Amino acid sequence: MYELLREELHARRGRFTTPHGVVQTPVFMNVGTQAAIKGALSAEDLERVGCQIELSNTYHLHVRPGDSLIRDRGGLHRFMTWDKPILTDSGGFQIFSLAELRSIKEEGVTFHSHVDGRKIFMGPEESMRIQANLGSDIAMAFDECCKIPSPYEYVKASCERTTRWLARCKKALAAYTSEDEAVNPGQLLFGINQGAVFADLRVEHMKQIAELDLPGYAIGGLAVGETWQEMYDTIEIVEEHMPKDRPRYLMGVGTPGNIIEGVARGVDFFDCVMPARNGRHGHLFTWNGIINIKNEKYLRDDTPIDPSCGCPVCRRYSKAYLRHLFKAEEMLAMRLSVAHNLYFYNDLLKRIRESLDEGRFGAIRDEFSKKLDKRI
Amino acid sequence: MYELLREELHARRGRFTTPHGVVQTPVFMNVGTQAAIKGALSAEDLERVGCQIELSNTYHLHVRPGDSLIRDRGGLHRFMTWDKPILTDSGGFQIFSLAELRSIKEEGVTFHSHVDGRKIFMGPEESMRIQANLGSDIAMAFDECCKIPSPYEYVKASCERTTRWLARCKKALAAYTSEDEAVNPGQLLFGINQGAVFADLRVEHMKQIAELDLPGYAIGGLAVGETWQEMYDTIEIVEEHMPKDRPRYLMGVGTPGNIIEGVARGVDFFDCVMPARNGRHGHLFTWNGIINIKNEKYLRDDTPIDPSCGCPVCRRYSKAYLRHLFKAEEMLAMRLSVAHNLYFYNDLLKRIRESLDEGRFGAIRDEFSKKLDKRI
Repeated sequence: MYELLREELHARRGRFTTPHGVVQTPVFMNVGTQAAIKGALSAEDLERVGCQIELSNTYHLHVRPGDSLIRDRGGLHRFMTWDKPILTDSGGFQIFSLAELRSIKEEGVTFHSHVDGRKIFMGPEESMRIQANLGSDIAMAFDECCKIPSPYEYVKASCERTTRWLARCKKALAAYTSEDEAVNPGQLLFGINQGAVFADLRVEHMKQIAELDLPGYAIGGLAVGETWQEMYDTIEIVEEHMPKDRPRYLMGVGTPGNIIEGVARGVDFFDCVMPARNGRHGHLFTWNGIINIKNEKYLRDDTPIDPSCGCPVCRRYSKAYLRHLFKAEEMLAMRLSVAHNLYFYNDLLKRIRESLDEGRFGAIRDEFSKKLDKRI
Repeated sequence: MYELLREELHARRGRFTTPHGVVQTPVFMNVGTQAAIKGALSAEDLERVGCQIELSNTYHLHVRPGDSLIRDRGGLHRFMTWDKPILTDSGGFQIFSLAELRSIKEEGVTFHSHVDGRKIFMGPEESMRIQANLGSDIAMAFDECCKIPSPYEYVKASCERTTRWLARCKKALAAYTSEDEAVNPGQLLFGINQGAVFADLRVEHMKQIAELDLPGYAIGGLAVGETWQEMYDTIEIVEEHMPKDRPRYLMGVGTPGNIIEGVARGVDFFDCVMPARNGRHGHLFTWNGIINIKNEKYLRDDTPIDPSCGCPVCRRYSKAYLRHLFKAEEMLAMRLSVAHNLYFYNDLLKRIRESLDEGRFGAIRDEFSKKLDKRI
């Protein structure tokens, strides 16, 4: 399913085939947590910002409106009218970051919904059932995402459990996707590597999950408090042990610079709430760095956010107008800003792919890796 | 500039030519108070919902971002990237409903901005200067909008002053639009009839302002607390004295039923915040009445808001998805709902125009005048 087209040092240009079409990698996945993009972007807008693959959240959709309701509507693709690939996370990250009063056992996790306080149990089988109901193209394994820092012994035991959970995930998803009424019989499972920033645990865990021969592997549990250097070091250490013929997904990362550095270390898939969240606050990405559109200096600026950007917002609206929308507290401010930022991220990945096609990724990395993350 | 194409009893089918194109009447004007449509609708969306003419607010834009800033950007059309007709109100209504600590004199009104408390003076000349700076196609006269009920003597004196203000508006706008640097030299002035619900004052005032031979006339000061019957009676009384060869604009009205009844009484232009405001609360117009999309009964409803509606929302999204978006508090909920409601209003006026073209407006009125305002 994954085809490696070209390499430049550790960076990889590839393509990954899913039941809803081919994803050109490296790729940024646009986050629609609750089956909608924050900032009022519609499914049509997602197409216009160049999104190849959308990411939704198992935990949120299980809590509201419920995954069986979505299954009965024909699955997530039909429910949100998005006909291209969808990846769903496993719920693990949200359970360990959002939900309250967790109790972790070998079977799974008991927690309370952040919406109505209702008690919910989720283990590998439940997570796979929910994701099978949603009918995403890529289901993520149910894992425990340890805090950084966490004690070595805790992380070690957690990784061992996550490995046992992964075997249960594989078995459960195989069963659910072969049911007659399966929403997406071709649904694929990605395993998730954990181990905090302990190199030996990361490597040991990666070796164990690689044995399960899954369609893809993610590096999870990063961008949760460690330094960028620790994150990069961890990727380098793990990457050596990841199967070359499977895509690698760095979960929840990151800034444009983080993504460039991730690609340089062999990562193929990325996702992050940053472009949407920053957009809602008026922080806009440009090819020269990050601007704050609310700044006084844009009061009378008739130029677009970035004259070199081809997005629908830059082709039509001025900075002066966008600034006015923020100051007047018009919802349109957020929508246009999020649209621009998501286009920027998708465009960044497109430019990275083109540079890999032409053997000049190194030059892109040198030019943009630091520049794009700077506030100007 | 106004061409009366056809009549059916008092109802009129016409067209009105402005510097930014022809408006087919009767028409609903889509309200973009602060140079943006509430609910995150963009200028492209306005085109998609079938908007012919947009309405913005002099008072709001004067306060923020400032009309001279907009003039320096090339005027409101360029600032908000809307190339079709724009009408601006005079600020009068907002001054008398929003602003604090007003003091009314013959010269004009002193008040405090609702945004920053700053003291502002606005009279006929100031209102015309602001609207000339904005460069709208239709400028509205600066008037006093009396509360209902107000004492007879107060309203009488107010109307007399509004007439004197109108003469000053006409003179001022003529001067401003003939300046070399005028943003929109073809800008047109509409007078506004006042008089609360006092028939004799309404008629007397209408006769006086008709003498000024303006390109159009509005009925103002209605839909501010009187009954629908009082409103309809007032329209009928005034309409007799409105020039037949000029368009008539019923300000701030109203429900679909109000609009049908207004057309039946000879009105050509309407505007109202209702479709956008109701949309943001999940109250959606259909050809069978008004639904509340948050209602439990739509939880598993895979049909569009209205199967007979051709809007981009009804062509793509289900009620179940829209309800989920509201429950999940996604901004997209508001955007899709406002888009549907505005399309509905523009479509209603389109159907009314078609019925007038074919001499069957009476049948449309009989079928829809009551039905469309009902909650179902």
